[in-house]
Amino acid sequence: MSNKKEIFAGIIIIGNEVLSGRTQDINTSTIASWLNSLGIEVKEVRTIPDDKKKIIDTVNELRKTFNYVFTTGGIGPTHDDITAESISGAFNDEYGFHKEAFSILENYYKPGEFTEGRQKMAKMPISANLILNPSSGAPGFYIENVFCLPGVPSILKSMLGGLNNILVGGDPVISKTLNLRTVESEIAKSLTEIQNQNSDVEIGSYPFFRAGKLGVSIVLRSTEQNKIDKCSDQILHFVKEKNIEILREV
Amino acid sequence: MSNKKEIFAGIIIIGNEVLSGRTQDINTSTIASWLNSLGIEVKEVRTIPDDKKKIIDTVNELRKTFNYVFTTGGIGPTHDDITAESISGAFNDEYGFHKEAFSILENYYKPGEFTEGRQKMAKMPISANLILNPSSGAPGFYIENVFCLPGVPSILKSMLGGLNNILVGGDPVISKTLNLRTVESEIAKSLTEIQNQNSDVEIGSYPFFRAGKLGVSIVLRSTEQNKIDKCSDQILHFVKEKNIEILREV
Repeated sequence: MSNKKEIFAGIIIIGNEVLSGRTQDINTSTIASWLNSLGIEVKEVRTIPDDKKKIIDTVNELRKTFNYVFTTGGIGPTHDDITAESISGAFNDEYGFHKEAFSILENYYKPGEFTEGRQKMAKMPISANLILNPSSGAPGFYIENVFCLPGVPSILKSMLGGLNNILVGGDPVISKTLNLRTVESEIAKSLTEIQNQNSDVEIGSYPFFRAGKLGVSIVLRSTEQNKIDKCSDQILHFVKEKNIEILREV
Repeated sequence: MSNKKEIFAGIIIIGNEVLSGRTQDINTSTIASWLNSLGIEVKEVRTIPDDKKKIIDTVNELRKTFNYVFTTGGIGPTHDDITAESISGAFNDEYGFHKEAFSILENYYKPGEFTEGRQKMAKMPISANLILNPSSGAPGFYIENVFCLPGVPSILKSMLGGLNNILVGGDPVISKTLNLRTVESEIAKSLTEIQNQNSDVEIGSYPFFRAGKLGVSIVLRSTEQNKIDKCSDQILHFVKEKNIEILREV
């Protein structure tokens, strides 16, 4: 293996609504795609309930395992929003009004509208740094390598850009996708041989069914373009030999 | 707390394609909603890479923690499909051709089409039980309390019904949702008081933004209808007092 710089992340999705099946999590793919562009690879995602002990244990396990940890959900004003308090517990940091967050929210709301309910959103580990929220005022926060974001997808998405210069990325992973009109069993043996010859390239094979027709996406991932090119050439060689139609190559 | 019968499950989503952000997992909500209807509550979901050691460790951890564990992905014919082999490892069971699975696949394909690539789909822990696949032939399997399903959502969905009589459920969780035209901070304090008075009901509060307007879904969950009704009445009382519009009550 080459001496590439690898940076890993874990994501913790906090919310009973995802575990009950009521809400479809889409934050994982948003965060993972964004981290990918920074050269940071997501190695694990955990979806856990709104449970203080479980949040503390999970955060403490993952923050030791990965370079970065991202949490989503549970930083709103209601009784089931217990992420900020739990993160304080995980870091043994005081849970209280964060001066800067309080001031941001005080300015955000009209006079008289910064109610007790809203003030809760300024409570967090008091030594945390803020993640600014261009959509709806209430900031997220980070402490050491743990970054806490809201669960509402559009708001979360609007906050990621503010972290681009704070995170330290690794070598970006380049990917290439070949969409073929075939089935996996037709190409499994050839792909195995090519994977064995190209241990530096991660070759994924994903069957799909679109517009009534079967196909397979082959995804090549590596930090080195020339290794992807070599691997892709080998695949295109056997694809030609087997008379498999190429639907798209990107 | 009442002496209700609680049955818990964990889900393991296996696949680099979900961790890279390329694929949006939708199997979690499918499995969780189905389990809910059987009175089984999902307590944790882990998304992990196609990595044998990681799969073995995660399966062995979760199968001791929860009544049931469900895995999705990695049971196809290609080199990156390593779930069946990993499950064999987790249970110290031989990984080889499963007679019944082999026979199902042999009958499914036309003569001469049951190729080496396809035969791999009959390899699994040899003492596993099969989960029949009405969509595409290749069965899933279970061993003790671990159930292994494919990653393709439509195929996975078609296989769940076959497990209804195998799983032993608990008391089903009933839920009620109140959609209100308000913001969370407006109702946070009242909700907290009601949650404190109704510890047997899980009260979730989820802001939404639809058609340009803000709202909050309040979701009440309990195994007992009368407890949900009591809690709902208390909420509707303060909603009326505050002149909050009720959008939908289900």
